[in-house]
Amino acid sequence: MEYRAPVGEILFQLQSIVGYRQVAATERFHDASEDSCQAILGEAARFAEGVLAPLNREGDRHPAILENGVVRCSPGYREGYRAIADGGWVGIAAPAAHGGMGLPVTLQMAVGEMFSSACLALALNPLMSQGQIEALDRHADEEVKALFLPKLISGEWTGTMNLTESQAGSDVGALRCRAVPGDADRFLITGEKVFISWGDHDLTDNICHLVLARLPDALPGVRGISMFLVPKIVPETDGRPGVANRLRVVSLENKLGMHGSPTAVMAYERAEGWLIGEPGKGLAAMFTMMNNARLGVAVQGVGVAEAATQTAVTYALDRVQGRTELEDGTGTIIDHPDVRQMLLRMMALTAAARALALDTALSIDMARASGHAQWAAREAFLTPIAKGFCTDVGAEVADLGIQVHGGTGYIEESGAAQLWRDVRVTRIYEGTNGIQASDLVGRKLSDRGAAARRLLDEVRATLRLAEGSLDSTGASNGRAEAGLAPDSVRGLASSLAAVAKTTNSFVRCQKTIDRQAGASAYLRSFGLLLGGHYLLRGALAAQSNARTRALAAFWCRRLLPEARAFAEAARPGSEDLYRLSASGFRE
Amino acid sequence: MEYRAPVGEILFQLQSIVGYRQVAATERFHDASEDSCQAILGEAARFAEGVLAPLNREGDRHPAILENGVVRCSPGYREGYRAIADGGWVGIAAPAAHGGMGLPVTLQMAVGEMFSSACLALALNPLMSQGQIEALDRHADEEVKALFLPKLISGEWTGTMNLTESQAGSDVGALRCRAVPGDADRFLITGEKVFISWGDHDLTDNICHLVLARLPDALPGVRGISMFLVPKIVPETDGRPGVANRLRVVSLENKLGMHGSPTAVMAYERAEGWLIGEPGKGLAAMFTMMNNARLGVAVQGVGVAEAATQTAVTYALDRVQGRTELEDGTGTIIDHPDVRQMLLRMMALTAAARALALDTALSIDMARASGHAQWAAREAFLTPIAKGFCTDVGAEVADLGIQVHGGTGYIEESGAAQLWRDVRVTRIYEGTNGIQASDLVGRKLSDRGAAARRLLDEVRATLRLAEGSLDSTGASNGRAEAGLAPDSVRGLASSLAAVAKTTNSFVRCQKTIDRQAGASAYLRSFGLLLGGHYLLRGALAAQSNARTRALAAFWCRRLLPEARAFAEAARPGSEDLYRLSASGFRE
Repeated sequence: MEYRAPVGEILFQLQSIVGYRQVAATERFHDASEDSCQAILGEAARFAEGVLAPLNREGDRHPAILENGVVRCSPGYREGYRAIADGGWVGIAAPAAHGGMGLPVTLQMAVGEMFSSACLALALNPLMSQGQIEALDRHADEEVKALFLPKLISGEWTGTMNLTESQAGSDVGALRCRAVPGDADRFLITGEKVFISWGDHDLTDNICHLVLARLPDALPGVRGISMFLVPKIVPETDGRPGVANRLRVVSLENKLGMHGSPTAVMAYERAEGWLIGEPGKGLAAMFTMMNNARLGVAVQGVGVAEAATQTAVTYALDRVQGRTELEDGTGTIIDHPDVRQMLLRMMALTAAARALALDTALSIDMARASGHAQWAAREAFLTPIAKGFCTDVGAEVADLGIQVHGGTGYIEESGAAQLWRDVRVTRIYEGTNGIQASDLVGRKLSDRGAAARRLLDEVRATLRLAEGSLDSTGASNGRAEAGLAPDSVRGLASSLAAVAKTTNSFVRCQKTIDRQAGASAYLRSFGLLLGGHYLLRGALAAQSNARTRALAAFWCRRLLPEARAFAEAARPGSEDLYRLSASGFRE
Repeated sequence: MEYRAPVGEILFQLQSIVGYRQVAATERFHDASEDSCQAILGEAARFAEGVLAPLNREGDRHPAILENGVVRCSPGYREGYRAIADGGWVGIAAPAAHGGMGLPVTLQMAVGEMFSSACLALALNPLMSQGQIEALDRHADEEVKALFLPKLISGEWTGTMNLTESQAGSDVGALRCRAVPGDADRFLITGEKVFISWGDHDLTDNICHLVLARLPDALPGVRGISMFLVPKIVPETDGRPGVANRLRVVSLENKLGMHGSPTAVMAYERAEGWLIGEPGKGLAAMFTMMNNARLGVAVQGVGVAEAATQTAVTYALDRVQGRTELEDGTGTIIDHPDVRQMLLRMMALTAAARALALDTALSIDMARASGHAQWAAREAFLTPIAKGFCTDVGAEVADLGIQVHGGTGYIEESGAAQLWRDVRVTRIYEGTNGIQASDLVGRKLSDRGAAARRLLDEVRATLRLAEGSLDSTGASNGRAEAGLAPDSVRGLASSLAAVAKTTNSFVRCQKTIDRQAGASAYLRSFGLLLGGHYLLRGALAAQSNARTRALAAFWCRRLLPEARAFAEAARPGSEDLYRLSASGFRE
């Protein structure tokens, strides 16, 4: 695939939709001006296009394999990873004190989108390290930080997350992995972990595993979970390589996609590790970094959506098939209305998902830079929506990408199929999208809907602006450049009302199960509403262009009806889900 | 996968939803009583479960390969195919005069669903033969029929469809394959065809290709297309095997799924063939059988949906993960509301798609048996909806099936991923779903909406019945067993109104392109409305059971809002699709 990083579009969104200048105006991020953003994104774009994109098909065709207990990665991955590390991309948002660049998460996510578009399987590797860096930065003591952070941030070593066990997936509290005190301040960890992304590889000399396990006499459930750092090679206290730790790769999974990313079953047998944070606070510590990791996965969805859109647009502009009545047609399939509606849907979904991801990232940066609880609450509320919505968008757009290609899309050589297979996992890992929805209607509405209502107020403000762009006759007036028709504006108003109605009913609803029954539909409706809000903001901005205006109009007419439908479908409660007994599901 | 054919559910639908007794009451099909249906479906069920299902994973893991110009099929496929042929399943609806069973297409489709659930890749083979049998039966002269039909019907030989060329896919009229008169009544065909399903294999001694090509001095476009029968081995006039024809397999495609089904590029170099039907009428001849083939693909969608649902239900009843507040829970993930809504959505979509496919098949049978134009118009209108909606359902249900499995769904061994990969092509072949939608709003509405309105009247009749089941206080009365709440009934009424409004606006609309712009959304809304109509009919029937009632209630509350949304999203016309110039699609 020939990938062209959408730097201009990302900069436009940062400036005109998500208000990045707020971030650059903080003391913490005063170095990250819009100009330096542009320079960094330009550099990342060249790197993604030139170095990462050529690796994507290779990884799919030649999966990572386990040979004599050692994982051998796909051709070119070692060099590709080296270049990521050498470019400083792993530590883009990591603390400067340990060698990172200390840039905003917003920028890290923008870069992550490009890397994910170019080569999702390899780009997952630094995403894992970034999560671990954040966890250690927040919870490890200074000695551990000094020993591990510089090597993780430089990319000399990589990091993994070890939560899942075969009986403990969404239900992390069911995990059984054990830790007992060992020599000095170390612990000995024993157990088996599954679905460990990049659990082993031959890209670096060492790999650091962040492992959840139970100490002796730990409480049952999530309160008995502690977090340990367990390196593949135990470093000497001065950082030099030491002895091999007692851990091994049991097997690699045969996956639907992401073939270049080895997914391992890991066995720990009294492996040496460091306790990170307090005993019994392991899951809480993991959760402090989970928002970032979840947003990182959301961005993977955006990245694949962008790649799929580009691939489909290129095909549609090239493929001659059938004729239309168009006077100024190109003679290719892009002239056909059904192909156009697919492409516009792909573009609009991608743009909306990108804005949602960047807006969520902005909240993370603002929460850190300002310390204000409202930004943290905004981040917390947006994160499950971003993770769920953006990865659903990635999958839907990749699916439409196949359809635009017709029969060719079903052939692996087109590349459209790989994108669709690869992105499928993003709706599952880092908490399935069902878990995100459950989190949204559970913990994230537990403030009596305050964070939700503040977001709905932001949508209302966009609506006012849009209404102001129409004159009294209902036609668009002086701001005609926004290209908004009255029906578009009404569409946003009625969708806002529908989502607000469901929000209110959820806040009033006492039974958790009744909210959970509509959780996925609610998440989707909220995402679709926010998509309209972002695209309208783009269309209303002075810098807007024909593309942005076309996408906003398309969204209001063709996607906002779905926002209303899902808002409505979220409300019935759980009664109809339990009429049938469990055994009744088998005919 | 362990597959259990849903014979009881299919029989229930035939009796209580689609009114199969009308078919059995005709003279043509008087042998096909409901009792003999039950016997035949029971036999097909045992065969699908015992013989075909065990081949499904084998075909995926060991794709058909091209070796020294010969295609070698997946392990067990030869024996599996032989058993299909020996069971008489190829000729189930074929004319008795040539060895077929002459049974209704409705039965053929019910059997096809089971075969598709069990092993989609192998089941595609007889589907191709069935299409060819129908084409020859309608258009070939007696000599050709006598020479080819008995062997195709017995399954001794198989048939293929050769329409597509690399520059002529959806636009069949662009094909370039040539035919010139040869010796006696034969023709010599030259050209290359692509995407030929089961274009070559080692299951039978001969393969008959139905090839579209142009005679000398043919008109340009579709009016210059003629149809030829080109066998791999040219039989002697007495049927004995003759010499090898001048055709060959150039290559096999490396596909996303359906690995057990070889998809060939075929080259013809003055290959000997028979003209079928009149010169220049080849496409029309193909189209007379296209409705059946399209419905056959719709049924593939239903089959995969059923298989995916069974796999997911089994997993959800077995997988222990997390706890709910349920007093009478199973302790497995089926207790969780989000899992339940996924499973119920899968079950409801599968049931609705099945009813739509069977109802369309019934129209084919009634049109044949009665000769009435209204049945033919009903068949013609329902066919694109069935093809588009049922295959979309197959894909969506298979996708939900992966999600129910969580991380396990992304591992190939679960089988969930294969179903999702395999069914993807059904939305593309036999006319992409975009082509179906275009056909629906084009030719199928060209009767000023008469066929559409008659179907909407059928939905209205169901609505009246449902309203009658509620008493004056709005609660359900004597027919409480239907389990219908007033909001469910209102949901059907408002969805009917929304689809009728779009239908009327399309019928009035003069510009084809404006209808086409909303064609896919219209098709989906019509399918969703019909789904509600079928499930409510099931719930209202005296024979209804808890499952049917639960699905009807679920559909009205959670899926009908989408019917209204898509009906609305279909109406904006094409203006917003053409604001952006073709070059504007590239950023």
